[in-house]
Amino acid sequence: MAGPIVLLTDFGLDDAYVGVMKGVILRIDPRAVIVDLCHQVAPQGIAEGAFLLASGYRYFDPGAIFVAVVDPGVGSERRPIALKTPHGAFVGPDNGLFGPIAEQFGARAMADAGRLSLTGSTLEGVTLANDRYFLPEVSATFHGRDVFAPVAAHLSLGVPLATLGPRLADLIALPAAGPEHRDGDLIGHVVHIDRFGNLITDLTGADLRHLARPVVLIAGQRIAEISHHYAERTGLLALVGSSGHLEIAKAGGSAAAVLGVGVADEVILREG
Amino acid sequence: MAGPIVLLTDFGLDDAYVGVMKGVILRIDPRAVIVDLCHQVAPQGIAEGAFLLASGYRYFDPGAIFVAVVDPGVGSERRPIALKTPHGAFVGPDNGLFGPIAEQFGARAMADAGRLSLTGSTLEGVTLANDRYFLPEVSATFHGRDVFAPVAAHLSLGVPLATLGPRLADLIALPAAGPEHRDGDLIGHVVHIDRFGNLITDLTGADLRHLARPVVLIAGQRIAEISHHYAERTGLLALVGSSGHLEIAKAGGSAAAVLGVGVADEVILREG
Amino acid sequence: MAGPIVLLTDFGLDDAYVGVMKGVILRIDPRAVIVDLCHQVAPQGIAEGAFLLASGYRYFDPGAIFVAVVDPGVGSERRPIALKTPHGAFVGPDNGLFGPIAEQFGARAMADAGRLSLTGSTLEGVTLANDRYFLPEVSATFHGRDVFAPVAAHLSLGVPLATLGPRLADLIALPAAGPEHRDGDLIGHVVHIDRFGNLITDLTGADLRHLARPVVLIAGQRIAEISHHYAERTGLLALVGSSGHLEIAKAGGSAAAVLGVGVADEVILREG
Repeated sequence: MAGPIVLLTDFGLDDAYVGVMKGVILRIDPRAVIVDLCHQVAPQGIAEGAFLLASGYRYFDPGAIFVAVVDPGVGSERRPIALKTPHGAFVGPDNGLFGPIAEQFGARAMADAGRLSLTGSTLEGVTLANDRYFLPEVSATFHGRDVFAPVAAHLSLGVPLATLGPRLADLIALPAAGPEHRDGDLIGHVVHIDRFGNLITDLTGADLRHLARPVVLIAGQRIAEISHHYAERTGLLALVGSSGHLEIAKAGGSAAAVLGVGVADEVILREG
Repeated sequence: MAGPIVLLTDFGLDDAYVGVMKGVILRIDPRAVIVDLCHQVAPQGIAEGAFLLASGYRYFDPGAIFVAVVDPGVGSERRPIALKTPHGAFVGPDNGLFGPIAEQFGARAMADAGRLSLTGSTLEGVTLANDRYFLPEVSATFHGRDVFAPVAAHLSLGVPLATLGPRLADLIALPAAGPEHRDGDLIGHVVHIDRFGNLITDLTGADLRHLARPVVLIAGQRIAEISHHYAERTGLLALVGSSGHLEIAKAGGSAAAVLGVGVADEVILREG
Repeated sequence: MAGPIVLLTDFGLDDAYVGVMKGVILRIDPRAVIVDLCHQVAPQGIAEGAFLLASGYRYFDPGAIFVAVVDPGVGSERRPIALKTPHGAFVGPDNGLFGPIAEQFGARAMADAGRLSLTGSTLEGVTLANDRYFLPEVSATFHGRDVFAPVAAHLSLGVPLATLGPRLADLIALPAAGPEHRDGDLIGHVVHIDRFGNLITDLTGADLRHLARPVVLIAGQRIAEISHHYAERTGLLALVGSSGHLEIAKAGGSAAAVLGVGVADEVILREG
């Protein structure tokens, strides 16, 4: 029994795009179990989609097939790809969306800084070229429906990766800065804001453990204690959230609203 | 194996209405595979629901059963119906929601312009009258739960259409204008705006092919070239989108926001 | 065949939280059928979640397993619990969310007004203590993923309730006022506003049946007739909605918008 087919897109739920992708999948593999990971990625928010995918995939069965479509370049030169890893297969556009996942499986930055080499990694990848596994008509604007959904359904039925197209040697990396050192501080960024207004950053529990008395600075506020859960104190909290990343939260409220902070804004981690 | 049961409603996702419909379906047919096509149809937006259904159903298995509930007249005189076509069964209120689908299967406008005759079509229809296939108590306000969901589940179990009620001879047509000719131009309308702000119109690829050098006019803007995909140029684009309809888009942005255009606004197609 | 696993949370759909819970469930029980009841409960809206659960659960199979996570106290002292009833099992935090359900199965208010005794009820409950049925690492902030989802999946596989932890004697009650009598009137409250702007109250059809000529007063408006469905008249309507509760609606519009009324506002029921 294959794992579920898991969908992540920036299509939202106001349209029938996601529903139609499911129809395509079930028409090819009527036994497929389909799960929505998230469809509210900001339109064309490749970095946000990459974050949600890289922090979520490990909770699924290793046989899961992830279809990720945040695809501003649909119809243009960007490659449609499929990847197999020891924990999940991934199908979607080669635009950086799979960069953080690929790094977890050993893909390494190349001299050409915009690319990741698969050599020495535990990843196998192909460019999707065999149109036998696509819908009969491929539109220029909806590869989620016409290419990625049907390819995922065929993978779910057991079609081998190698039959889908030629082997990939490298991937597009996500052009994300990541945390950087400045004057003894570690400077991170907000990468996602959740429904509760919690600010999720690219700083991790490991970054905190390097400091004896970590202090967090954000939007002019100073948080000198690291909490363990949201109900621990009133006001602003800093804690290592369920994704393993440093979060700024407000008990019973929205840290994003209180601080007026958005995605990409800076968060400073400093020895107290 | 029956096809999936596919739900389209204007119930939104802020309430438990859709979840409860799924509970009812699974209680009757625990093996049913249920798919959400869309639940964010504008409240009582029969024309928008009809568009999403008519452009989406063909991507599902021909054995699919569609439950569509955009039903401002629930509890009043409007008929509850079920239709069988060579590609899908359809269950819901007879208020125009199924008009465009029925026309695709050969239903024809009657002298009474508000109705479509099923004579000569490949459709069979019934009025839902046999309350053996409803929930034991039918409320006056939630036929999605009490009538349409259980009827769909019984169809999925193999109950024949004819046992659900008396044969239908006609359907209510959707009171939609459609494109019209004016002074040599073809005047269409925006029928849906998607999450990306793309304006989807009732003009189609076929309408474009009738012109040697098609030009699109909308909100005072003139688009003289037809693109193939969203990344093809910057600024406003006109292209035949994934539904086969003419779309107005803006690369990396929202055409709806830039143009200040809404559903039902005019789009003009002219020889250039 | 176990019933479906039904999810109710205040996580919204903008994040991957719900998707990740489904991944956890399917990894443990790949045959589980998962249904979303609602994820748009207002953040930390325990009373609203309790209302949606108590009015929705009966439409599901009696073997259904409900996972309800509206959990402002996650990581603090509040108990994680599981309940079994003759109609459904329930897994989540002990913070009042299951109070109304428990009362339907005979749990009774204790001298300590904040608690409900399970003695004499048809409910069995346990505190979730056996971490063999949790994820290997339990975060302090996401018990939906780490505790409640895996416990539900194990229940779905047939793990007996008693193996999950020690027997519960009582539950936290929902601190909700409910309707009260004042000067011969019955004073109720708005408990939920649906997508259509219908105001759902804590007054029921039974409350109406006690009056010969019921009149509803809300926000300075007087509604002297009880309708049967939304299309029955224009303007404001009062009717017993599909949940069995008194609703205030506006034909073709939003009663909430017209009246400027919100959750917890008063609705008066009076003999006409």
